[in-house]
Amino acid sequence: MRVRRLTSVVLAILASGVSFAAAAEVGSAKDRAALMQTDSEFSDAAQKVGIAAAFVKYTDPDAVMLPAGQNAVTGVDGIRKQFADLPAGTTLTWKPNKAEAAASGDLGYTLGTYVMRSKDKDGAPITRYGKYCSVWKKQADGSWKWVVDVGTPSPAPNP
Amino acid sequence: MRVRRLTSVVLAILASGVSFAAAAEVGSAKDRAALMQTDSEFSDAAQKVGIAAAFVKYTDPDAVMLPAGQNAVTGVDGIRKQFADLPAGTTLTWKPNKAEAAASGDLGYTLGTYVMRSKDKDGAPITRYGKYCSVWKKQADGSWKWVVDVGTPSPAPNP
Repeated sequence: MRVRRLTSVVLAILASGVSFAAAAEVGSAKDRAALMQTDSEFSDAAQKVGIAAAFVKYTDPDAVMLPAGQNAVTGVDGIRKQFADLPAGTTLTWKPNKAEAAASGDLGYTLGTYVMRSKDKDGAPITRYGKYCSVWKKQADGSWKWVVDVGTPSPAPNP
Repeated sequence: MRVRRLTSVVLAILASGVSFAAAAEVGSAKDRAALMQTDSEFSDAAQKVGIAAAFVKYTDPDAVMLPAGQNAVTGVDGIRKQFADLPAGTTLTWKPNKAEAAASGDLGYTLGTYVMRSKDKDGAPITRYGKYCSVWKKQADGSWKWVVDVGTPSPAPNP
């Protein structure tokens, strides 16, 4: 009996350790995939419902955006206003190329590239290329929302 | 004896649960503080040993920097080269104003503001203001190194 009890204790401790380790491994791969997918769906949403509406949908309440030439823009309302005055017809598409997540699955980031298309005052098309980093927080419902977003211009890609 | 053994098992399980929960809480606060301190020391190092050397010291091998007007710069060697040709006398100082860390303590980020001082070709001083996000990974030795760094220009602060 003594051995059996001791064995159960050891097994319980081992099982607990193993499950934590396994959760960390599996969680990370799963979270990386979820981040890649969420960021891609976020870009899809920007095409479907518009940039401002998509951003609002995927923005954490504590979000901070770091736009060039301005001070930081914070919160869902700030983000909505940031995109409210984009010239009609402006499109913004992006594609993540890397994601990492914490073992605890509560924080992660994506890196990717974007293309912004608009028109100048004479109606001539303007295409801007860039790259970005988004930091993401897992929400209470298991979805991810971005908490930091910052992009910088890149040269046009080689044809 | 039976009660005592059962009690030990229950206590062991409770202790294990409590220590995990406490580690998540305490770890986060401790990690946030460590990130703020590391990022500040990183800026101090840039004054003491120079920007390139400081960046190399605090750069994770998988680091990605997103400089404006260029494609992403990757790895310690890429980062070293990025700063190798800064005009003599250029200084870069920064100060984090926010840090968050994952409950698992392996990933976090800082937000802050920077000031870059240099001189134009006629020797007149140029001051550039900006803001940044750095994503950090905890290293095997418990220290933090940045894995993503991206900044954007800001207006000069109000006097």
